[in-house]
Amino acid sequence: MGYTFEPVAIVRSCFQEKFAIPRQPSLAPAAGGVLELLPPYDQPESTAGLEQVSHLWLLFVFHAAPSGPAHLRVRPPRLGGNQKIGVFASRSTHRPNPIGQSVVRLDAMEPGRLHISGIDLLDGTPVLDIKPYVPYADQVVDAHNALASTAPELIPVAWKPAAWQAARSHAQRLQQPVIELIEQCLAQDPKPAYQQPSAEREYGVRFWDLNVRWHYPQPGCIQVLTVEQQSPGPFPGS
Amino acid sequence: MGYTFEPVAIVRSCFQEKFAIPRQPSLAPAAGGVLELLPPYDQPESTAGLEQVSHLWLLFVFHAAPSGPAHLRVRPPRLGGNQKIGVFASRSTHRPNPIGQSVVRLDAMEPGRLHISGIDLLDGTPVLDIKPYVPYADQVVDAHNALASTAPELIPVAWKPAAWQAARSHAQRLQQPVIELIEQCLAQDPKPAYQQPSAEREYGVRFWDLNVRWHYPQPGCIQVLTVEQQSPGPFPGS
Repeated sequence: MGYTFEPVAIVRSCFQEKFAIPRQPSLAPAAGGVLELLPPYDQPESTAGLEQVSHLWLLFVFHAAPSGPAHLRVRPPRLGGNQKIGVFASRSTHRPNPIGQSVVRLDAMEPGRLHISGIDLLDGTPVLDIKPYVPYADQVVDAHNALASTAPELIPVAWKPAAWQAARSHAQRLQQPVIELIEQCLAQDPKPAYQQPSAEREYGVRFWDLNVRWHYPQPGCIQVLTVEQQSPGPFPGS
Repeated sequence: MGYTFEPVAIVRSCFQEKFAIPRQPSLAPAAGGVLELLPPYDQPESTAGLEQVSHLWLLFVFHAAPSGPAHLRVRPPRLGGNQKIGVFASRSTHRPNPIGQSVVRLDAMEPGRLHISGIDLLDGTPVLDIKPYVPYADQVVDAHNALASTAPELIPVAWKPAAWQAARSHAQRLQQPVIELIEQCLAQDPKPAYQQPSAEREYGVRFWDLNVRWHYPQPGCIQVLTVEQQSPGPFPGS
């Protein structure tokens, strides 16, 4: 027996591809976006009271996860990508029902739109539900999880001066914390853990309408090479 | 565009009806149950690693919520039942997509079955996903929610001696913390906030296979009158 749900909102996000999205929300506070509520939920009535709430849970569809049946076991990147655990012991996106659950900060509200940050959501993500974070119930102070006991270790992120200048000017154009976003996401070291790239190998990702390229001048250290506006193509959030 | 999901598990719970279920999980640590995983997820592979995790998130269907379109605003019992807020500012069960999200304690595992407690789930609840609680991401220490800033106030629960004796003997039969369950659930004062019952008015609820009856000898104070095994009818978890 199946249950069918329709989206109540769509996420407009800085993240234009899955690569380099932090593995949990809150790891990149500079990662921002907008929840665009769909009719009839775009009326202010549906969110009345949320101005008294600092954080939201979003239940959403991993709409870009690979299709096909989920495996019973997965290899979480957290464990180096070579150790398998049960799919229900992981937060993997590839799961029996591809539903994600993220806590985000609620920064501002306008009719039909909620401005959020600290997100780990791909642009275009369909949202099935929005719930207020309830600290006394959701902060489980005696919880422990030996599979993911602390946030991932961060690696240092340096810049080519021209890339930093470009990021600063795009930050003004977009009115977004572009420098912080790049530093927070790259410090998580987005490349697969098993790769040992040479200094010549370049990686890239798109944040907002920006192509960001970097390399590893030495193991465990990132340098941002270029930050360039993608052309052509409309800005997806506009 | 809709998304269809199939249950991965069914909850067997002490709660046989919605009345007297605590409004959040963790408010009644004695509330226990079993997650019965459905094929193919009843294989031990799907939960391998969970022995390192103390708490789980369950995403589930409010299968007994009233059908029909959800309203944009709801009256949460928390606010006395006479103040309306937006449905997305509440955890009401009657919402656009009737998906619930609860954190529960994982007490023990056996093949195809997870023993859980601190639940607020009705018996027979279809579960769509099971995820590990990740303390560093899920404990949002700077979160605030002025609509529900603290756990609900508790009221005192007293017993008729014969009811207490009966609860103790059923606890031995069921191998369940029946006395604690009754005290923890009734201390939340399950009756609608607007009711001012006389001492003659009796209330009842079913926990496991037990009919529990109580009254309010004076306002704000509960006395358990009887605890009787329901007959006939099979024990639903057996």
